Amino acid sequence: MTDDIAAVAREAASAGTEVLAVTPRFGPASVESILEAHIAAVGIIDAAAQHATGCDAVVLGGFGELGREALQELLEVPVVDITDAAAHVACFLGRTFGVVTTLERSVPSIEDRLTLAGLRDRCAGVRATEIPVLDLTADPAATVKAVCATAELSVREDGAEVVCLGCAGMGGLALEVSRRVGVPVVDGVPAAIRLAETLHALGLRTSKVGFYAPSPPKAFLGWPLPVQMGPPGQPSGR
Amino acid sequence: MTDDIAAVAREAASAGTEVLAVTPRFGPASVESILEAHIAAVGIIDAAAQHATGCDAVVLGGFGELGREALQELLEVPVVDITDAAAHVACFLGRTFGVVTTLERSVPSIEDRLTLAGLRDRCAGVRATEIPVLDLTADPAATVKAVCATAELSVREDGAEVVCLGCAGMGGLALEVSRRVGVPVVDGVPAAIRLAETLHALGLRTSKVGFYAPSPPKAFLGWPLPVQMGPPGQPSGR
Amino acid sequence: MTDDIAAVAREAASAGTEVLAVTPRFGPASVESILEAHIAAVGIIDAAAQHATGCDAVVLGGFGELGREALQELLEVPVVDITDAAAHVACFLGRTFGVVTTLERSVPSIEDRLTLAGLRDRCAGVRATEIPVLDLTADPAATVKAVCATAELSVREDGAEVVCLGCAGMGGLALEVSRRVGVPVVDGVPAAIRLAETLHALGLRTSKVGFYAPSPPKAFLGWPLPVQMGPPGQPSGR
Amino acid sequence: MTDDIAAVAREAASAGTEVLAVTPRFGPASVESILEAHIAAVGIIDAAAQHATGCDAVVLGGFGELGREALQELLEVPVVDITDAAAHVACFLGRTFGVVTTLERSVPSIEDRLTLAGLRDRCAGVRATEIPVLDLTADPAATVKAVCATAELSVREDGAEVVCLGCAGMGGLALEVSRRVGVPVVDGVPAAIRLAETLHALGLRTSKVGFYAPSPPKAFLGWPLPVQMGPPGQPSGR
Amino acid sequence: MTDDIAAVAREAASAGTEVLAVTPRFGPASVESILEAHIAAVGIIDAAAQHATGCDAVVLGGFGELGREALQELLEVPVVDITDAAAHVACFLGRTFGVVTTLERSVPSIEDRLTLAGLRDRCAGVRATEIPVLDLTADPAATVKAVCATAELSVREDGAEVVCLGCAGMGGLALEVSRRVGVPVVDGVPAAIRLAETLHALGLRTSKVGFYAPSPPKAFLGWPLPVQMGPPGQPSGR
Amino acid sequence: MTDDIAAVAREAASAGTEVLAVTPRFGPASVESILEAHIAAVGIIDAAAQHATGCDAVVLGGFGELGREALQELLEVPVVDITDAAAHVACFLGRTFGVVTTLERSVPSIEDRLTLAGLRDRCAGVRATEIPVLDLTADPAATVKAVCATAELSVREDGAEVVCLGCAGMGGLALEVSRRVGVPVVDGVPAAIRLAETLHALGLRTSKVGFYAPSPPKAFLGWPLPVQMGPPGQPSGR
Repeated sequence: MTDDIAAVAREAASAGTEVLAVTPRFGPASVESILEAHIAAVGIIDAAAQHATGCDAVVLGGFGELGREALQELLEVPVVDITDAAAHVACFLGRTFGVVTTLERSVPSIEDRLTLAGLRDRCAGVRATEIPVLDLTADPAATVKAVCATAELSVREDGAEVVCLGCAGMGGLALEVSRRVGVPVVDGVPAAIRLAETLHALGLRTSKVGFYAPSPPKAFLGWPLPVQMGPPGQPSGR
Repeated sequence: MTDDIAAVAREAASAGTEVLAVTPRFGPASVESILEAHIAAVGIIDAAAQHATGCDAVVLGGFGELGREALQELLEVPVVDITDAAAHVACFLGRTFGVVTTLERSVPSIEDRLTLAGLRDRCAGVRATEIPVLDLTADPAATVKAVCATAELSVREDGAEVVCLGCAGMGGLALEVSRRVGVPVVDGVPAAIRLAETLHALGLRTSKVGFYAPSPPKAFLGWPLPVQMGPPGQPSGR
Repeated sequence: MTDDIAAVAREAASAGTEVLAVTPRFGPASVESILEAHIAAVGIIDAAAQHATGCDAVVLGGFGELGREALQELLEVPVVDITDAAAHVACFLGRTFGVVTTLERSVPSIEDRLTLAGLRDRCAGVRATEIPVLDLTADPAATVKAVCATAELSVREDGAEVVCLGCAGMGGLALEVSRRVGVPVVDGVPAAIRLAETLHALGLRTSKVGFYAPSPPKAFLGWPLPVQMGPPGQPSGR
Repeated sequence: MTDDIAAVAREAASAGTEVLAVTPRFGPASVESILEAHIAAVGIIDAAAQHATGCDAVVLGGFGELGREALQELLEVPVVDITDAAAHVACFLGRTFGVVTTLERSVPSIEDRLTLAGLRDRCAGVRATEIPVLDLTADPAATVKAVCATAELSVREDGAEVVCLGCAGMGGLALEVSRRVGVPVVDGVPAAIRLAETLHALGLRTSKVGFYAPSPPKAFLGWPLPVQMGPPGQPSGR
Repeated sequence: MTDDIAAVAREAASAGTEVLAVTPRFGPASVESILEAHIAAVGIIDAAAQHATGCDAVVLGGFGELGREALQELLEVPVVDITDAAAHVACFLGRTFGVVTTLERSVPSIEDRLTLAGLRDRCAGVRATEIPVLDLTADPAATVKAVCATAELSVREDGAEVVCLGCAGMGGLALEVSRRVGVPVVDGVPAAIRLAETLHALGLRTSKVGFYAPSPPKAFLGWPLPVQMGPPGQPSGR
Repeated sequence: MTDDIAAVAREAASAGTEVLAVTPRFGPASVESILEAHIAAVGIIDAAAQHATGCDAVVLGGFGELGREALQELLEVPVVDITDAAAHVACFLGRTFGVVTTLERSVPSIEDRLTLAGLRDRCAGVRATEIPVLDLTADPAATVKAVCATAELSVREDGAEVVCLGCAGMGGLALEVSRRVGVPVVDGVPAAIRLAETLHALGLRTSKVGFYAPSPPKAFLGWPLPVQMGPPGQPSGR
């Protein structure tokens, strides 16, 4: 899945942008529960601590998941989560946006993330296709069909004027879904890559006054995680 | 002022982007009242009707002003207002943002625009320097000083973690204000230019389902401008 | 249409009230788009600048449209918009009110006007009959039927306890719709006329502290209308 | 106090309007606590049950107090509370309003009433003079001075553009306070009288669908209150 | 009904807790209207004034009704209303809760109480069985069936994860409804009893700074109610 | 610190309640940053996976921290976080509550947790003493003084009627702070213990419909954490 996301990211990036794709070296195969989201967040923190040095910005490829604030605290360069990226981009395209995600059980997490990001006001609703993350690529035609059907409900029932794809695993479907459903469809990974480039081009970095101020040094027990716990995640290329 | 804004825009734009700067052919010298904002909005609509054909996106250079929705309805390409651009960019940099604008009398208009854009939740407050738009360039050092002092109040009193410059006439001050105040400072024009490029690069256009759907043809009296408007409307009785 | 609205207004007015009905001297035949609303707002400002002197109050006859704030800034006498008038009156009659308007495309504008007026909390919803403004009088029986059917949905589905007629062109239908649907029905024009009388009788005028403070003098290009506007604005470069 | 309020009401009423002033036949000398508000509410219900027949509308003269909804349920004619009346009228005069009341301890009750009425959004704040209701008339000059000082804080600190007098016992001060403070000042009793006339003139009555639907018959123990509990409140005239 | 509620309360109470059940000595047989709620509130105040001395906490057994704040003002010991108790407990068990009450006409009152308690955000909705309070025990099987059907709608249509029984008369049904509907079901009386014990055990009492501060002495006309108005309500035991 | 918290918990617990105190076997010495909160959350999940079997309820002793939802998903028994516990208890004691915590940098996290819990409406504000968690016990008199001074600001400036101690490390100060400041003071650990007992006594468990539904099995890389990473956290007793 990291390879697929990396391919979408590289296709979206500007000519001069180098994309370093990193998979956390531990954690769940996909994130579909609160517990998994917490473990994945620590995996992402661990990966950023290892790989973010020298990057101009960091993009997080999980929709509705945890960890963005921790990275903003840890790093100085901009951190762009695909949830925020998709929702902010959607705000420029329509008065309201809907989100089409994988499982019903992920809906509250996405709603909570949008609430904390102050983006709930313009969200018409979050709907699920009930296709698990790891099954999205099993039958691409069925996935497109289910995403379109759910997006149509979002437009017709909830009044969404724009649809956000609510899972990085839906990357590459935006154009086809937009063509079929007749509204703009925002894919979070390309949106996040371009926004990260924008923030960097504008010379802007995370504010270090307030919520994301650097934390004082602190004694940790059993942390950082021992390297022998598994082989480090391999960056998928440069 | 259009020339100054155009210079800021061109400096912010990517290499391949051509910036066409347009001043409405009628309207107020600056916008500092509700009445002026309404006349300027029609001036902007008139200008877009004449000049937007062939453009890949339209950027509106008035902070807290009117007209964005009308252009989104009129055009298919993305329309990015500097109010929205600055606020959305600020959301990626801190938990809260403040706005530093010109006159106290413009504060409610800016608040209303943020409210309708669903961006009020993360706005820590809007503060005024009490320097009128047309005086911003009269004494640059005094302007920088006043903007910094107001930005500091925004950070210290309102809890803003990021500051947005609330007037296109403050263009070019962001770096200096950021250096002095110690928080990221977002200038709306560069932000809007880069976001417009981003939307175009992502292949996204304004949704034509809902609020911005094309309007049916309609008979107009004395429009488009310029017009032979004829005699003043007759009161239908007394 | 101005004549019809004037007739409704005069019927609603108290014995001693003289109603001066004014149509803007330019603008759209009806207002059903954002662009039309902006041009109409300037038409209203232009009309008020010519005709409001000597009036004790000004009533604006467009539901969900723009311009009220500009007139409050321009004038000292009370300015009452029929949107606000209907909604405030409805608040005295039931816990919630619904709005029945013409086209679905006007719903967001009405919602936005109610939001800015702080009246959204008690609004159960805005629904459209899909009869365009200029067709409302074509088949009166069909119009009453459609308004009643939509009002019934508002009551039954949205929980509205009161219905506001969301277009001045529906003037005169309130009694019949109320009789058929069984809830109070508020027509904006009579409500606004009586509220304007009330404000005048109470000796109250628009606050000139804050949002509606008089604006400082300002150079205008090509304004007030009618004008010799000169050649179209020159794009400053390409 | 009923006589004073009745005098203000009669002065505000239109020529053809007859004002019947009623004091509940039991209850507290003034309302400055939650317990007192509850007993006064039942006193008002009792009074309305005795005296409202034949009236075209009922006005409740307590600011921030309880009972309005019960009367709307009991009666078919419009019921106008001075809290709602003042706040709704203020909404036509400025973007925000403040309330100046008697005791700090009454502030939460007023806030709660405004919240339930959906009027909290435009309320800039509620402030207290700390003059008890029954002392308001003891030293009129001191009262005016305290009300003006509090109103000025409301305007300067809270951003109120209009001030509502938050106690019927402040009746008659509006003009003087407005002159001194420089913003419109709304007195609830005249506002309520005129609004009650307006609702009646528009032929509108309380919705009987929903919250104010008539209640089914019910067995009561010890109710209605025995007439021998005290002499009935004497209407102060007709 | 007081006996039934007392039985539920005693069953829920800890070993050392003595439950004193009191019926107001006047008021409606059940509370299903706003007017009834106001009279019942005074009945409760009257009962508390007579019986609360010596109690460690007071529990109010009416769901969505009035009077809690008055008792918090009057007394120093904790006062727990079953509406608040059920809703707060539900917040610990799921992300959202629904309320199943008796009559549709009571829904707005419950919504208002939840709004003022700041508990509306997590309430998925209030639904009615349309069984009047006094009929709840007439056909227990039919009542359970109706409560379950309504609870299922709350879960399926509104997204409630927990259901609160919205009437003390539904006491004793929680277990059965929970078993059938598959979500936790909170009965207000046991919840309130246990919470009252908790507040007492923690040594906490109502804050006397602010809203619930003791009120100054005040002259009352015809109050306290004459004892001869009816025999005092008999506490159902000790 | 775990021992101190355990002592407070055991003192607050009912006679029959056994308190099992567990420290996560890895993580930060205290939680004062977002990154630390994320690592601590996983530590808590890991600890619960090891130790929660057989417990009737789980209490989380971190104020404003992460992980509660994950445990509610993982376990069936009630999970009570001290943030929620303190805030819900405070709602029974006053109209508004304030929170007094350690560092200013923790304020946003606490605000976010209260927002997601739907408890923000009644929170008058969160204030910091600027004493780090691990210094709270260094100079107890200075800590009490700082907590009292901050609590007084919360009451006087923010209008708090109740104060919640915003750190488990402040355990044991509630009585003294309450005595000095004159408002009820809620300590989260005793509140959470008693609420956990209450939920258990009422026979209520976490809803498994919706947000906290059990997650499907999932392949994890490098998880559960290898036991050799450090000695297991020692339960401090039974």
